[in-house]
Amino acid sequence: MHELTNRYSTKTGQEIIEVDFTEDLIIPSGSNLLIGNGYLGYRGIEANWEATEFSGCIVSDTYDKADGKWRELVNAPNGLYFNIIVDGQPLAKFPDVTSENESLRRSLDLRSGLYNSIRKFNLNDTNFILETNRFASLEQLELILANYKIIADTDVRIKIQAGIDKKCWDLNGKHLEDFKEFNQDKLLSILATTVESNINLSVSSLLNIANNSKEKIELINEDNKYLLEFDLSLEANQPVELEQYMAVTHSNQRNNPLQDSKEIVKEAKESGFKLLFENQLENWNKIWNKWGVKIGGSVKDQALINFNLYHNRIATPAYSERLPIGARGLSCQAYQGAAFWDQEIFNLPVYLYTEPEIAKNILKYRYHTLPGARKKAEDLGYKGAFYAWISGKTGEELCPDFFFEDVLTGRKIRNHFNDWQIHVSPDIAYTVWHYYQATGDIDFIIDYGSEIIFEIARFLYSRAHFNKNKKEFELIRLLGPDEYHENVDNNVFTLYQSKYALDKALKIYKIMERDYPDRLAVLKEKIELKDEEVANWKEMAALIKKPEPDPETGLIEQHDGYFQLEDTTPEVLEERLQDPGEYWGWPNGVAHHTQVIKQADLIQLFWLQPELFSDRVKEKNLDYYLPRTEHGSSLSPSAYAIEEARQGRTEKARERLIHSASIDLENTNKAVSGGTFIGGIHTAACGATWQVLTFGFAGLHFIEDEKNGIYPEIKAAFKPEIPAAWDYYQFNLKLSNQDLTIRVETDTIIMTASENNNEEINLKVSEEFVNIAPGITRKIRR
Amino acid sequence: MHELTNRYSTKTGQEIIEVDFTEDLIIPSGSNLLIGNGYLGYRGIEANWEATEFSGCIVSDTYDKADGKWRELVNAPNGLYFNIIVDGQPLAKFPDVTSENESLRRSLDLRSGLYNSIRKFNLNDTNFILETNRFASLEQLELILANYKIIADTDVRIKIQAGIDKKCWDLNGKHLEDFKEFNQDKLLSILATTVESNINLSVSSLLNIANNSKEKIELINEDNKYLLEFDLSLEANQPVELEQYMAVTHSNQRNNPLQDSKEIVKEAKESGFKLLFENQLENWNKIWNKWGVKIGGSVKDQALINFNLYHNRIATPAYSERLPIGARGLSCQAYQGAAFWDQEIFNLPVYLYTEPEIAKNILKYRYHTLPGARKKAEDLGYKGAFYAWISGKTGEELCPDFFFEDVLTGRKIRNHFNDWQIHVSPDIAYTVWHYYQATGDIDFIIDYGSEIIFEIARFLYSRAHFNKNKKEFELIRLLGPDEYHENVDNNVFTLYQSKYALDKALKIYKIMERDYPDRLAVLKEKIELKDEEVANWKEMAALIKKPEPDPETGLIEQHDGYFQLEDTTPEVLEERLQDPGEYWGWPNGVAHHTQVIKQADLIQLFWLQPELFSDRVKEKNLDYYLPRTEHGSSLSPSAYAIEEARQGRTEKARERLIHSASIDLENTNKAVSGGTFIGGIHTAACGATWQVLTFGFAGLHFIEDEKNGIYPEIKAAFKPEIPAAWDYYQFNLKLSNQDLTIRVETDTIIMTASENNNEEINLKVSEEFVNIAPGITRKIRR
Repeated sequence: MHELTNRYSTKTGQEIIEVDFTEDLIIPSGSNLLIGNGYLGYRGIEANWEATEFSGCIVSDTYDKADGKWRELVNAPNGLYFNIIVDGQPLAKFPDVTSENESLRRSLDLRSGLYNSIRKFNLNDTNFILETNRFASLEQLELILANYKIIADTDVRIKIQAGIDKKCWDLNGKHLEDFKEFNQDKLLSILATTVESNINLSVSSLLNIANNSKEKIELINEDNKYLLEFDLSLEANQPVELEQYMAVTHSNQRNNPLQDSKEIVKEAKESGFKLLFENQLENWNKIWNKWGVKIGGSVKDQALINFNLYHNRIATPAYSERLPIGARGLSCQAYQGAAFWDQEIFNLPVYLYTEPEIAKNILKYRYHTLPGARKKAEDLGYKGAFYAWISGKTGEELCPDFFFEDVLTGRKIRNHFNDWQIHVSPDIAYTVWHYYQATGDIDFIIDYGSEIIFEIARFLYSRAHFNKNKKEFELIRLLGPDEYHENVDNNVFTLYQSKYALDKALKIYKIMERDYPDRLAVLKEKIELKDEEVANWKEMAALIKKPEPDPETGLIEQHDGYFQLEDTTPEVLEERLQDPGEYWGWPNGVAHHTQVIKQADLIQLFWLQPELFSDRVKEKNLDYYLPRTEHGSSLSPSAYAIEEARQGRTEKARERLIHSASIDLENTNKAVSGGTFIGGIHTAACGATWQVLTFGFAGLHFIEDEKNGIYPEIKAAFKPEIPAAWDYYQFNLKLSNQDLTIRVETDTIIMTASENNNEEINLKVSEEFVNIAPGITRKIRR
Repeated sequence: MHELTNRYSTKTGQEIIEVDFTEDLIIPSGSNLLIGNGYLGYRGIEANWEATEFSGCIVSDTYDKADGKWRELVNAPNGLYFNIIVDGQPLAKFPDVTSENESLRRSLDLRSGLYNSIRKFNLNDTNFILETNRFASLEQLELILANYKIIADTDVRIKIQAGIDKKCWDLNGKHLEDFKEFNQDKLLSILATTVESNINLSVSSLLNIANNSKEKIELINEDNKYLLEFDLSLEANQPVELEQYMAVTHSNQRNNPLQDSKEIVKEAKESGFKLLFENQLENWNKIWNKWGVKIGGSVKDQALINFNLYHNRIATPAYSERLPIGARGLSCQAYQGAAFWDQEIFNLPVYLYTEPEIAKNILKYRYHTLPGARKKAEDLGYKGAFYAWISGKTGEELCPDFFFEDVLTGRKIRNHFNDWQIHVSPDIAYTVWHYYQATGDIDFIIDYGSEIIFEIARFLYSRAHFNKNKKEFELIRLLGPDEYHENVDNNVFTLYQSKYALDKALKIYKIMERDYPDRLAVLKEKIELKDEEVANWKEMAALIKKPEPDPETGLIEQHDGYFQLEDTTPEVLEERLQDPGEYWGWPNGVAHHTQVIKQADLIQLFWLQPELFSDRVKEKNLDYYLPRTEHGSSLSPSAYAIEEARQGRTEKARERLIHSASIDLENTNKAVSGGTFIGGIHTAACGATWQVLTFGFAGLHFIEDEKNGIYPEIKAAFKPEIPAAWDYYQFNLKLSNQDLTIRVETDTIIMTASENNNEEINLKVSEEFVNIAPGITRKIRR
C-alpha cells in the first residue's frame, strides 16, 4: 500500500483508497470519490446519506437561478437512495468507529470510475456487511448503476427502503418545484421543474431484488422521500445481491424526460449491472490508452496523476459542443458549473493532444457563446467579444457584482471579476491558435476560430486606451491572473496575451484574405467588420505597451506600480488576519496593498509564451515572485511547477507537481472565502497535472517559423528533464493527427510513431531535429 | 438679542455671543471664538486653559512632520497663560454652573477681532469677576495682546501666575524640542526647534501689572510651565487692570526669532493695549469697508455673513505670496494648514473683487509651488503640473497614501485623494483666468499665470487617454468633488474644468504669440515647451469627452455608470451604518456603491461654468442630485445655495445660505471621520458665503465676447434676486480696478461707481446694458 496523503492511499496507482473514514471530511471526500461522465457527477456518498451529508448529483445543462443572484447547475434528487432497517431501526449514517463491529472502507477505481464501499455494522445484535459498487455510465450518460451485496451473520428479516430522496444539497436556493411522483411496477419516477429556467427534470429509480422470494412492497411518500419498502429475509452468511438504477434526464436534452428516464432504467435492468460494467471498463480503457501516461518508479506519483486525469475527464461535458467545463466540474454547485479562463488554459490542453474532438467541442462552446460575449461587451460600452468571467450555457456573464463579503463587518464587497478581468478573452484566442498548432485543423479556424478571434481583437481594441504622450496602447483597470490586485494598469500577462491575440487575428485574416476570400467576405459581412478595424488591430499589435525586464535586475513588474507596494510575504500577512475567513484581496484585504500575490501571474505568462523572455530573465523572476506567492489559487502550483521543470529545477518541480496534484486529496485549499463556498474538485489543477508532465518536464513547446509564406511552419519541440525518483515517464501525443508516444528515461528519450500514422513526424528534441516515419521508434540520448 | 443658533446669538450683527458656556463644546467654541490675522490663529480659550482644553496658537509657515506621516503647522507654546490663585487654590478651568456665583460669558467682536470673556467665580469665599480682552494684531502679525480686569468683593491678596505654557495640543506628534528658557526683567521667552524641519521658534510673554505697588515675583519653571508668580492685593470692588503681551516668531520669517519676539512684546508694552487696540479697530475697519456687505432686515443673517467673512480673512496668510490658505485656516492643525482646491474655488473669489492684491498673492503661491506640482506629476508618470491635493509650503503632496481607517476593523484604508483627484489642477487654471476676468491684470498672466496654465495643460494631456474607438480623450480613474466615488471615469466636473483649462491655455498662448513674443520665447525655453504640445492641447480641447444631458430627461450622469448604481438616499444609508464614525466612501463605505454623493459635484460645475447648460437642464439636475446629496462636506451647501439662488429658488437658497454659514456655529459636521480629526473652522464654507451673495443672489457672472480680436471682451453681468426676509443687501466690487457698490432692494437695483474711479463701468444687469461713469449712481427696476 502506498500512502498518497494522510487521508488516501493507493495499491496499484489505479485507485484511491480512503484511510480511516472521518465524518467531518465528507465534503471533500464526497468530491474526491466522485463518479461521473461529463453529463452528471454523483458524489462519493453512502447509499443512505442525504442532503445533510452533502449528497449530490449535479447535472450539466440545467442552469437555474433560485436566489436572485447565483445561476448554477441543479443538484438532482437522489434516485439511488437505499437504506436498511432491522426491527424498526434504520442503519446509521456513519459507522460507530469506537465499535469493533463497525467500519466503513471506501475506494474509487480510477480505471473504471467505480465507487466501492464496504460498510460493517451491527443492528439488533446482528453483524452485517453492506458492499456498494456504483458507476456512472460512459455509454448512457444519464444512467448510474449501483450494486449492493448484503451479508448478515445470523438469519434475519430486514427491510430495504429504496427510491428517490427529493431533498437536495442546494448551495444557493431551491431549484426544483412542482414535484410529480409516478409509481409503476416498482419503478419510481419524479418530474419537477426548475424555478427560473423552467427545465423539466426527471429522475427514475428502480431497485432490482434478484433473489428474494416472498417480498412485500410498500410505498412511502413522505415529505422528502419517495421510496419503496421491501421485506427481505437473509440467511446467515448467505450474501444477497441487489441492483439499483437511477436515470436523470431533463428537457434541455430530451423531449420527454419522464418517459425517457423510465426507459433508461428499464433497459439498464435488462442488461444488468455486470454486463454494463464490462462495457464501462472497455470505454474507460480506450480513454486511458489515449492518454498513455505512465510513471515508472513511483506508484504514488502515478496514482496522483491518474486521479487528476480522471477528474479532469469526468468534469468535461464532452458530449456537447454547447457546454462549459465547470471550475469545480460536476462535483458540487460551487462556481456555478461554469467556465472560467481555467477551461482553455488548464482543462483543455490534454484534449488537444489526446482527444482533439473534445477540444474542438470546448472551443465550439466559445463560438456558440459569442452572443453572450458580445452582449457583455456592449453592456459595458465595448465592442466585439468580452467573454464572461463566469460563463454558463449562453455565455452571458454569471458573475454577480457582489459575491464576497467582508467577514469582519458582514458587508458585501464589490469585486470586479466580472468587468475588469479581461484576460479571459485573449486566453481563449490563445487556445484557439493552440488548437491549430496541435491539430493543424485549418477548417476549424476558418469555420469557427476566425470569428472568435476577430471579435476578441475587436474587443481588445475597444478596451484599450491610447496614451498619446507615450504613444502606446495601455490596458487600464485590470485584474490579472493574480486576483488580489484588482484595479491595476498594464498587467504584463494581459498585455502580452492581448498582443498574442491581435497577432493571431492578423495572421488568420491574412490567410483568409489569400486562400479563403469568399469565406472572409461572408464573415466580414456577418460581423460587419471593416478594413479600418483590421488596420487598427495592426496598429495596436505594434504599439501595445510591452513591458521589458529591468536591464540590471532582469525583473519585470507585474503591473504598473507593483514594485512600490509593501514588500512582504504570505506568512507575515497570515499574522495580520483578524479572522481566518477573510478575503485577502480587493478592496481592503491584507494582500491588496502588498506585493503578495494570490497565484502565478507573470510566471503563468512564461508557461504560455516561453519564447518571450530569456532564460536568465525567467529565472530571476521565478526567484522573485515565488516567495511572494500565497498559492491561494489552485491554479498556482502547477504554473510554478511547469516553469521550475523547464528551468531544470527538476526536484522542486516534482515536489510542486505533487502539491498541485494533491490539492483535493489533501483538502488544503479554502472551502470558504469571503463567505462564499468554493469547495469541490479543483478541475483546473487536475487539467494542469498533465501539462506539468508534457509542457513542464518534457518541455513541450512550439516553434513557429513564418519564413515560408503565410502559413507558419509549426514544429513541436521538447527539452526533457526527469526527476530522480522516476525511472521513466511516458505519454501519448497526437500531433496534426499523427500518434506519437514519448518515453523519457534517465538517459534516453524514446519516441515511437504509431504504425497507423500516414505522415512523418518532425520534432525538435533538445537541440536535435528528428523525423519519425510511421511505425518507427527513435531513441536519442538525453 | 438675536439667536443665531442654539449656541450663539448676536446683538448688532457685528459680534457673536456664546449662550450658556458648555464644557463639552470647547473644541468647536475654541474655533468659533478664534482670533487671528493670517499669520497666526489663537483659539478662543480662557486664560488658564491648557492643552487638555485644546489651547492653540497655530503659526503659519512652520510645517513640520513629527509622526512620520502628517506634515502640519506647529501649535506654538501659549505665551498668554494667566491664572489666579487665592490662598493656594487656583482658579478652576470651568465655572461651576450649578453655583449662582459662577458663570462664564464669552463673545467675539467681529469688527475688531476681539475676544471678550467675563468669568465670575468664588474662591475662598470671595466673589471675583475676571474680564479678559484679547486680540491678534493686524499691524504686528506676530503679536497678541490681552487685557485683564479683576474685581473682588472683599479685600483680598491673590497670586497671579503668568507666562508660557509649553505643552501644546498636538494632533500628530510633538513638534518642538530643545527648549531653552530666558528670563529678563519679567519678560519670559522660550526658544525651541521643530523636530523635522529645524525651524527655530520663539515665544515671548510679558505681564504688565500697571497699578500694583508691592509686588513679589517668583519664577516657576516646571515641566510644561515657564511662569512668573506675582503677589497682588485687591481692594474690595476696586478693579485692577493688567496687560499681557505674547509674540511668536520663527526662523522661516526672522533671522533672530528670539531677540525679535522679545522686542515685539517690549514695544507692545510701550504702546499699551489701548492704543494698539485703536489701531486694530482702524485696520479692521478698512477691511470691512472694502467688503461693504450689508443685509437690511435681518440682523441674524448679517451676523452669519460677517462671521464667515471674518474667518475667511483671518485664515488667509495675506502677508505672504508663498503660503497656502488652510482648509481649517489657523484654527487647529487639522488638514495640515494646507491648501486644497478650496483655496482657489472657495476662499479666493472674495479677494478677487475686494482685495485683489491678496488674490494675487494666493495665485503666486501656486506659481512658487510649481516645482512641487511638477515633482508630483513626474513621480506618478505624468508631465507638467499636477498640483498637490494637500499643498503646504513647497507644493509637494502632503496627502499620505493611508489616512482613513475602517473603524469597524481598525484597518487602514488606501484612499486615492493624492493621485486620482486631479481636478485641483484645472481648478487652479480656472481661477487664474478668473483673476484676469475680475482685474484685467494681463501682466500677472504673462508673468505668472501663463506658466501655471501651460504646465496644467501639459499635465492634463499626459493624464488623458485617447479612446480610439470613440475618438475622444477620456479622463480615467478620478475622484471628482464628490469624494465618495473614487475610481470613476469621466467625471463631468473634471472633464469640463479640464476643457476650460485647455481653452484658456490656448487663449493665453495666442495672446503671447502676438503681443508678447519675446516673453513667450523665454517661457518656452524655460519649460521646454514644444509647438507640438500646443497642437496637442488644441486637439484635446476639441476632442475631450463632453457629456451631454439626456435629451428626454435633461439629466447629466455625474460619471460613467453613475446611474447604474443603487438609487437611494442619505437617510437610508445612515441606517446601514454599524458605527457612526464610519467613512462613507471608498472602498467599501455605505455610499460607495450607491448614487448618494458626499457633496455638490455636477452642481458645483453649474456654479463655475453657468453658461454650459440650459436653465432647464440645470433645474432638472438640481432636482435630481439634491435629494441624493449627503452634504458630508462643508463645501456642499453653498454650491447648492448658489445654484438655487440663480434658479430663482430664493427662499430655499436663503435657508441653505444660513445652513452653510452656520456650519461651525452649529457644529453639525463630523469632527472625526474614518478615525481622522477633521474639526476646526471650515474656511471654504466661510469663503463661499460671500459668493452665495454675489454669484448666487446677485447672479454675478461674466460674459466673454471674443469677436473683437484675441482679447476677449469681458463684461460682468448680474441677475439679482432677493429673499423676502431682507429689505436689501449690498456689497462692494472692484472690477478692473474700478470700485462699484451694488445694493439690491426688493424692486430696485442701485449701482454706485466710486468717484475715485478713472473709467466707466460697463455691466449687464438682467437684460439691460448699463454704463456707469465715476461718481454716478444708477438705479434700475428689478
